[in-house]
Amino acid sequence: MGGDSAPRETVKGALAAAREYDLEIAIVGDPEAIESELTRAGGAPKNLSVVPASDAIAMDEKSVVQAVQRRRDASINVAMALLKQGQAQAVVSAGHTGAIMASAYFRLGRIPGIERPALGTLLPFNEGKVFLLDVGANPDCKPAYLVQFAHMGAAYMEKVVGIANPRVGLLNLGTEDNKGSELVQEAYPRLRDSSLNFVGNVEGVEVHKGVADVVVTDGFTGNIGLKVGEGIADYILEQVRSVIKSSPLFIAASLLLKPALKRALKRLQYDEYGGAQLIGVNGVVVIAHGRSDANAIKNAIRIAHMASESDLLTAIAESAAPSPRLAGAALP
Amino acid sequence: MGGDSAPRETVKGALAAAREYDLEIAIVGDPEAIESELTRAGGAPKNLSVVPASDAIAMDEKSVVQAVQRRRDASINVAMALLKQGQAQAVVSAGHTGAIMASAYFRLGRIPGIERPALGTLLPFNEGKVFLLDVGANPDCKPAYLVQFAHMGAAYMEKVVGIANPRVGLLNLGTEDNKGSELVQEAYPRLRDSSLNFVGNVEGVEVHKGVADVVVTDGFTGNIGLKVGEGIADYILEQVRSVIKSSPLFIAASLLLKPALKRALKRLQYDEYGGAQLIGVNGVVVIAHGRSDANAIKNAIRIAHMASESDLLTAIAESAAPSPRLAGAALP
Repeated sequence: MGGDSAPRETVKGALAAAREYDLEIAIVGDPEAIESELTRAGGAPKNLSVVPASDAIAMDEKSVVQAVQRRRDASINVAMALLKQGQAQAVVSAGHTGAIMASAYFRLGRIPGIERPALGTLLPFNEGKVFLLDVGANPDCKPAYLVQFAHMGAAYMEKVVGIANPRVGLLNLGTEDNKGSELVQEAYPRLRDSSLNFVGNVEGVEVHKGVADVVVTDGFTGNIGLKVGEGIADYILEQVRSVIKSSPLFIAASLLLKPALKRALKRLQYDEYGGAQLIGVNGVVVIAHGRSDANAIKNAIRIAHMASESDLLTAIAESAAPSPRLAGAALP
Repeated sequence: MGGDSAPRETVKGALAAAREYDLEIAIVGDPEAIESELTRAGGAPKNLSVVPASDAIAMDEKSVVQAVQRRRDASINVAMALLKQGQAQAVVSAGHTGAIMASAYFRLGRIPGIERPALGTLLPFNEGKVFLLDVGANPDCKPAYLVQFAHMGAAYMEKVVGIANPRVGLLNLGTEDNKGSELVQEAYPRLRDSSLNFVGNVEGVEVHKGVADVVVTDGFTGNIGLKVGEGIADYILEQVRSVIKSSPLFIAASLLLKPALKRALKRLQYDEYGGAQLIGVNGVVVIAHGRSDANAIKNAIRIAHMASESDLLTAIAESAAPSPRLAGAALP
C-alpha cells in the first residue's frame, strides 16, 4: 500500500517479478484494491497471492513510530509478521521509510552485536557496485556505529553482490587521515585496525569512481549526499531537455540520439539497483523509493530475493561478534 | 602560484579580467614565472602589475597551518598583507584551501561576533542564485555557528547578488521541524526565532529547485553534498560522451546538438559562479577551484570585485552584533 503510485505500480511490479523470477510473492494490503489492480493487469499467476491487511500507514503520517506500534493491522506490520514467522524470507515496501524501519525494529529486532541498523544503497555507478551507508537511519553516529556499518556493508557486497574482500572507504573531506569531523577522525583508526579491507578516506568527488566498494558515513551526511546527487542528476536532465526543446533542429538530432542517451541514463537510474537495504535487523528488508514505478518494484524484489538466498544475516552476525573480528585482525 | 594549472591559467585569467573589467589587478608570486606567462600572452595592460613573492605553499603541503605561520614570503601571505594594508580590496586564489583560510585568519582576523568564518559557494542552479554554506571550513559545528552562517549567507545574497530579504533554509533529511541530527534540531528554533527570512528545512533533493536562496549546513555535510554533486555531474557527462562515441550516427547527431548541450551544460558549471567565498574574515577572500582554468579565475576576480564594492563586510558585522539581531526579531 506504500509509495506514491500504490497500489497500481506496486502490484504491477510484483506481477512482473512473479512472472520473471522463480519466487512466491505475497502482496500485503487492502484485498479489494489489490484484486482490482490484478484483474486490470490480466490476473495473477499461481506464485502470487494476496494477504489482507485492513490498515496502512500513510506517506504523510505524523508520529510514525507510535502509529506502527499501535496499528497491528497496518500492511507493513502484517508483512513483517510474515517474515518474523518464517512465512516470508524478505519484505519489500515503497512506503514511509520511518514506518518500515520502526516496524522492522519492533517485529524483527536487531542482529546481536549491531547497535544500530543502517540504510544502505547501491549507487548507480560502475554498474551498481558502490554501496553507500548509512543513508538516513542514524542522523547522529558514534565511531563504533561507523565500524559496524562498515562490516555490514562489506558483508552485503560480499554475500549479495558477490565481491570478494570488498574495499571499504570512509567518506571524508580529504584523503589525509587527520581530516574531517571528530566522528570520522575517531572512526579512521578503528577502521584501519579492523579486519576489514580498509582503503582510507574517500572524498565526495571520488565516490562515483569506484575507489571503494563500500563507502561508510553517518546517516545525516549520507542522506544529504545521496539526495543532492539525485537532485543534480534530475536537474541536468531537465536542463538538457529544456534546451533541446528550444529548436526543431535540436529536437530532430535528439531523436537520433535517443537510444544512446537512454542507454547512458539507464546506467544512472537508482531504480535499477533495488532501493535501500535496511541492514542490521533480523531479516531481509528492502525499501524501494517512494516514487517507484513497476520496474523499480520488480528490481527491489529481485535484490531482496538475492539477499534472502545469501548468507547475509549470518555474515553480519559473525562480523558483529567481538572475538572473530579481533582475531581476524591478527590473521595473516 | 596556487592551483593545478598555475601560473599559466591564473595569469591568463588575471589578464582577461584586467582587459574586461575596470580594475587594478596585482599578480602575486614568482616574478620570473609570471612575467614569462605575461610575455607569452602578449604583455600586460597598464592596470595589471606583478608583486613578487619568493615562496609559495604547495598544493600537497603537509602541516599547512604551520607552513602559513612560518613562511611570511609565501605568495598567499604576501597577497593577504596587501589586503590587510588596504593596498588591495580583495584576494583571489586557486591555491590550497586550508592555506588560504589559515592565512586569512592570521592576517585579517575575524569580523567581531563571528565565531567561525565559513566557506560559501553559489551553486550552478537557477542561474547561480543558491548559496550553500559551510562547504568545508568547519567539519564540526555548534547550533550557534549555523545561525551565524545563515546571517552571513543572507548578507552575501543581499549585498553581493542583490536578492532582497533572501530566504534561508536549513539542509536536513526531511521537511518536518523535528527531523535530523541533534545539531539541526537545535539550530532550527534559533533560526525560526531569528530576524532572518527562515523558510524551514530543505531536503537534499530540493536544493537545486531554488526553494531557498541560502542553504545552511555544517562544513562536513556541505562539503560532501557539494563534492558528491560535482562527481555525479562529471559522471553523467562521461557516460553520455562514452555512449555517443559508440556509433558514427550518434556522433553526427551529437554534433548537431552541440550548441544546445553546451548551453545546457554552461548553466551547470561551477566555474561560472566564481568559486567559494571565505566569509566572516575581515576582508574579501575568494577561493577558486584548484582545477580552475583562465575563465574560472576571471569569474572569481569578477565576483571578488562585486563583493568588495558592496557593503558585505559591514552587513555581516551588523548581523553579528547581538543587539540589532535581537531587536530585529521584534521589528514589524
